[in-house]
This record gives sequence, C-alpha cells and structure tokens, in this order.
Amino acid sequence: MTNTQTLSINGQRLWQSLMDLAKIGATPKGGNCRLALTPLDGQGRDLVVGWMKDAGLDITVDQVGNIFGRRPGKNPDLPPIATGSHIDTQPTGGKFDGCYGVMAGLEVMRTLQDNNIQTEAPLELIIWTNEEGTRFVPVMMGSGVFTGVFPLEKALSATDKEGKTVHDELVNIDYAGDAPVPGHKLGGYIEAHIEQGPVLEAEDKVIGVVTGSLSLRWYDVRITGMEAHAGPTPMPLRRDSLYAASYLVQDVVHIANDFSPDGRGTVGEIHAFPCSRNVIPGEIKMTIDMRHVDSKAIEQMDAQLRAACEDLRTGKRTGYKVDVELTDVQQFASTPFDTDLVDAVEKSARQRGYGNRRIVTGAGHDAVYVATVAPTAMIFVPCKDGISHNELEDAKPEHLEAGANVLLDTMLDHAG
Amino acid sequence: MTNTQTLSINGQRLWQSLMDLAKIGATPKGGNCRLALTPLDGQGRDLVVGWMKDAGLDITVDQVGNIFGRRPGKNPDLPPIATGSHIDTQPTGGKFDGCYGVMAGLEVMRTLQDNNIQTEAPLELIIWTNEEGTRFVPVMMGSGVFTGVFPLEKALSATDKEGKTVHDELVNIDYAGDAPVPGHKLGGYIEAHIEQGPVLEAEDKVIGVVTGSLSLRWYDVRITGMEAHAGPTPMPLRRDSLYAASYLVQDVVHIANDFSPDGRGTVGEIHAFPCSRNVIPGEIKMTIDMRHVDSKAIEQMDAQLRAACEDLRTGKRTGYKVDVELTDVQQFASTPFDTDLVDAVEKSARQRGYGNRRIVTGAGHDAVYVATVAPTAMIFVPCKDGISHNELEDAKPEHLEAGANVLLDTMLDHAG
Repeated sequence: MTNTQTLSINGQRLWQSLMDLAKIGATPKGGNCRLALTPLDGQGRDLVVGWMKDAGLDITVDQVGNIFGRRPGKNPDLPPIATGSHIDTQPTGGKFDGCYGVMAGLEVMRTLQDNNIQTEAPLELIIWTNEEGTRFVPVMMGSGVFTGVFPLEKALSATDKEGKTVHDELVNIDYAGDAPVPGHKLGGYIEAHIEQGPVLEAEDKVIGVVTGSLSLRWYDVRITGMEAHAGPTPMPLRRDSLYAASYLVQDVVHIANDFSPDGRGTVGEIHAFPCSRNVIPGEIKMTIDMRHVDSKAIEQMDAQLRAACEDLRTGKRTGYKVDVELTDVQQFASTPFDTDLVDAVEKSARQRGYGNRRIVTGAGHDAVYVATVAPTAMIFVPCKDGISHNELEDAKPEHLEAGANVLLDTMLDHAG
Repeated sequence: MTNTQTLSINGQRLWQSLMDLAKIGATPKGGNCRLALTPLDGQGRDLVVGWMKDAGLDITVDQVGNIFGRRPGKNPDLPPIATGSHIDTQPTGGKFDGCYGVMAGLEVMRTLQDNNIQTEAPLELIIWTNEEGTRFVPVMMGSGVFTGVFPLEKALSATDKEGKTVHDELVNIDYAGDAPVPGHKLGGYIEAHIEQGPVLEAEDKVIGVVTGSLSLRWYDVRITGMEAHAGPTPMPLRRDSLYAASYLVQDVVHIANDFSPDGRGTVGEIHAFPCSRNVIPGEIKMTIDMRHVDSKAIEQMDAQLRAACEDLRTGKRTGYKVDVELTDVQQFASTPFDTDLVDAVEKSARQRGYGNRRIVTGAGHDAVYVATVAPTAMIFVPCKDGISHNELEDAKPEHLEAGANVLLDTMLDHAG
C-alpha cells in the first residue's frame, strides 16, 4: 500500500473536466440538460471519449450504447476492474450526478498514465447509457441490459414522447455499437457518486462507504368515502376520504420512524376527487414509497401498513368506514455490496484521513444492477443540502478530489 | 286559514311537469344538462314560459334574462309575493335542483287558477338566470343582478370557455329583456328546493324549515417544506410538507366538530408538488371551506384555524418548521331569513302533519341574495342520499308534493 498512499489524483484537473463537460447542455440556472441519446448527449459522449482516448484507453461500444474504455493490465486474461457512471442528466439536472463518477474514473486513468503504472488486471471506465430514464424508460437502461436484468430488445424499442426509439437515436448520435450484451465479465466495479442525500453534510463527513442499497416497496392506494357538498352535509354524516387519508399519510411516516435509522416512508403523490373547493372529497389516490436496508424490517413495515389500511376500513381512526384499496406496484430487494470492496473503500478513506461513515444508498444506481453480476462498491461524497436532480446541485472540489483518491486506491488495491 | 287548509296542489301534475322539463337536455344516466343560456336552456325556458302563460301569468323578462310571471292581486299597488328558482343545470346535473322550485311555484299558480282564487297582493313566479355558474361566473348571476349585489355590465360581459358573452347568448336564445335592473320591489320571496344534504332523509323528515344560510369562509393554504429524494433522505432530516398538511386536514375537521351541530370544515382540494412517487413533497397547496350559522362561531373557528397554522409553522405538530401561507379567498356572512315567513313555513308543515325540522342551508341559493332586499324563506324537501349536482339526484313525489303544499300555504298566508 505504500505505493498507493503516495499516489493521488489531480483535483484541479478533475474539477476542470467536470466544468468543461457541463458546458454542453448548460442551463441558465447553472445546471445541465443532456437527456439520454439527444444530440447534446452525443456531444458529451464525443468529448469524454476523446479524453478517454487521450488517457490511453481502448474504446468499445456495445449494442445498447454503453461505452467501455479499457486500460490493459499485465495479465490480459483477468477480467477488468471497472468504474464509471453516466453522463445523461435530468431535464433540469446538475453538473455532478453521474458525471462525477465518470470524471473520477477518467481522472484515475489519467493519473495512472501520468505515473506509468500498469495494474495486474485490466482497468475499465464505463459510461452507461440512459441511467436517468427521463426520456426513455426503463431507468438504468444501459447497466440493466449489460447485466441481463432485461433484454436488449426491450431497451432498443423504448420510445420517447415523440415516438423516437432508442435504436434510432443510438444510430443518430453514432453510438450503436456491436459489443454483445449481456456483457463481459467484470472483476469488480466501484462507482463514485454524490450522495444525493443530506447525511454526509449533516455529519461533516467526506466519504460515504456505501454498504448496499435499500429494499423498496411501491404501493398505490385508493381511498373511497362519500362525495358530498361541503355546505349542506353536517360533520357526523360525512365519510370524508381526505380526512381518512390524512391518517394514512401520518401512519406511513410513523412506521418509517419506528424502523429508524434505515426506514423510509414517503407519500409523494396525492390526488383528491372531484377536487373542488366546496365538495367533500369522495376519493383519494396516493402513492406510498417504503424502504429499509433489512429485508425482515421491510416485511414488518409492510405488515404495519396493511394494518393501518385495515384501521381505516373499519373506521377505527375516523369513526366511519371507507374503502381502502392497497396495490403493490413494484418491489426491489436490498442489494448488499461486496464485503471486500466495501472494506477497501473504508480502509482508503481512513488511511487518507478522510472523515467517513458507512451508509446505504436510497437512490437507484447502475452499481445496483452491476452488483448482481460482479463484486461492487460505491463511494459517496457530500452534495450541498443533499440536493440533486436539480440545477442547484453542488459539491465541493475537495470532496470530489477525496472521492476520486479513494476510487484510485480501491481500484489499485483490487487490480493488483 | 280554513281556506288554505283545504286547498292542495296536484302532486301528479307537479311530477309530470318535472319529468317533461327533464326531457330537454336529458343525459344517458337519467340526469340533465341544460347549461345556462345554451339553446337547450332556451328550449327549457320556452316550455316553462308556455306553461306559465297557460296558468294565466303575465310574462316579463329583465335585462339579465330573469323571467317573471305575474298573477295579478286585488291590490295592484302591493309588491308581489314571489317564488321561483332556476332551470339551468350542472353539466351532469339532476332533474330537481332548481327545477323543483320553479315547478312548485308553477303548481301553486295552476292550483290558484283551477280554484279561481285571487290574492290581495300580486303573486310572481321567477326563473333566475344562470344560478349554477358552471358556464358563466359569477354564480347566482340573475338574482345577484336583480338585487344589485353586482352590476349588470359584469354579468353581460362574462364569457364562457369559447369566448361567448352572456349578452350575445341572451340575444341568441331570445331572452334579452328590457325590464330594468336592479329589479322591482318584492313583498316576500319563498323558494322551495331539494335539501342537497342528508339531514332530512337521515331523520325521516319531510319538510326543512330553512332559517337562513351559513356564513362561509374560503381560504387557500400553501405549506412549504423541503423537497428531497424519498430514498437517500433519512426521516429525521426531512421537512415533509404533506406530513405537515395532514395535521391541518385533521385540524379543519376537528375545529368544525368542536362547533357542532352547525360547524362545517372541508379540505376539498389538495395538490402536492412536485407530485412524484419517490420525491418527498416540498410544497402542498390546499383549500379550506369553513361554515357556521353563527357569526361569532365562525370568528372563533377562524382563530382556531390560524392557531393550527401557527402550530405547523413552529413545528409543534411535526418536529420541524414549515412555511404556512393562509390566504382569505372569499367570505359570505350568514343570512338569517325572515322570522315571520320562517314561522309561516313551519306552521304550514305542522298543520299539514308533515314531519319537519328547522335547518340551515349550507349551499348558496338565489334566495340568499333575495334575502338582502326582501323578506325571504326557503322550504327544503329531502333528496336521496343527500346527493345533488349529479345525475343520480333523486327525490320522492310525495315529498315534492308536500313542499309545494307548504309553498302554497305560505304564499297565500303572506299575500292575503
């Protein structure tokens, strides 16, 4: 480890590359709009691929447009140790989400080139296609196809609002490659990313050692009471569906609080019908998002949610009965990351003296799909106020530099 | 009173007229769609005006299209004792809202004609223009202009979604009259109407003796917390605006419950922003509708609402602060009806042996405006499940007959 201790990336070059990439699709408020597979995404890819070639990487592109930049190892038979992320953005996205992971990987490659270091295993920098899923669904499309989570055909036939397909838009920006999918074996995958949450900043930590992803349950709820006029209907004769729903909104939060610190409970959407100022809502539709890192805990949260719905049905909370329809929409199991890689990330942060803590990722990342086929870890760095998917997204140069140094250490540690 | 005791209206003829009128603009589900000043409204007016002429009434039309059918009294110097309502409907309205009041008044006129009875004061049957306010705002347009609550010009220049004006549409259906507004003096006004609420049905009463209208306060509320990702944001670091709003939804109901039986509290609209399944809502907009018959009580309810908002601001309920903006949108003072007329309605119901109770109107009616210029009362009859403004709106023939008999008694009592 003496070798890796002295080697560090160039934080200023990293920052400059991030700022240069952010000029493509820059928005007036300081953010970025490079929707997946648009001409602007193509320009961004061309710029970064140029940098990758300059850093001595061999470029290949697969059938769903994922870009791979390989740095040969001493032993070409070993599977590559990879890093990467995405450079597509939300419509009013920021400069760091995704881009940081790619630029940090590029900076690792540049640093190794500057120092003429060759690893035992090959290294690889990956730009995944359409992580955001804003223009085309499903989200995390490139990593999903690469890892065989869903088939190539599903991705290529996805259409945007104008009816354009992923296939046609890949051809259009000249990133319809021929490397086969599902893709080649990886010896490991480490992705650096801004936290997209407020924890590191709140605790003044520089590095989040990501141990895995939260399991997730999405539900739709429909609560049906009795629509009636707000004026002529006395309180005791009402079956107000919004009043009933207000208890469920609180229950979702209280259930998550009961499973702290890793429980999450959110009602993100709520719709009242008929939604008129002087009509008691007859129906409420809402969504519920519940998460926990522990699979037993998420089962218990699910059971408590169902009990809360039953309390509404029987009128235990409101004094009147309502119909409550709870529908399962989607589930993701929690994905633990690779113990050795997680330990390596932590060791690097400690040795470099970066304040750090173990953390789980609540958001989806390409790394979560890659973890299904290769040893995986993630490195989080703080972002301002925990804000992302927003033009206000911001991060400190010294934090970005620290994360890239940890990435460098971890890749060298794993690639030998 | 011996005379009026023996005189009764023809319930079957009343029902038949209601059903005949309902054929114009009939909807597939058994309701009615005769939006104000459409050709269908014109056809409905023509039909009823024909019946009014057959019943011996002299027709005049004022500048906002209100129709007056006068039955001369022995003393032409006395102001007329009037009744009426409206025949325009909601887009998916029923057969009884408004129409019942006009048909009940017509039935009174027909009954007096059949029995060759002339009253001391003249009688008048009024069809008010655009009570519903669905196509043109403001609502209760005809009675509002007649009573001088707002000027003629405001009404005539109102436009529908296609840009057509009230003035042009009045000309189009040939109901742009020349009787001046604000209108002539009325000696009294009694309006029969379905309850539009569930109270009479729940208590098995036939007649609601309406003592006045509820005072009303409309508010808009905006609650601003912090938008954040549902996954990466731990519960203690959230400022969830919907969770905060859920307490206010409950407070509005609880405040109304505290002021039973005449308090009402309703959140009819709620909107979450950004309204996405995996985003903690950063902002909630909602409406509040509070009513009470007593002006002191409504002031106290207002004060309690403001205190509830303050509890949200300071984080007393949620543990975190949010911004709460409470905006006054509209206020109506409560309108007590005329004591003598209200007593007369009650006396008739008792003498005829109709189960009755005193009740307030929570909904707006033309009578509420007329009460500002003339002694006024209303007679409610039950409607099925308290439902109105709906194709399912329904009422029993015997209840409609009873209400028209009470109207007959009250008009004769007041007209001498």
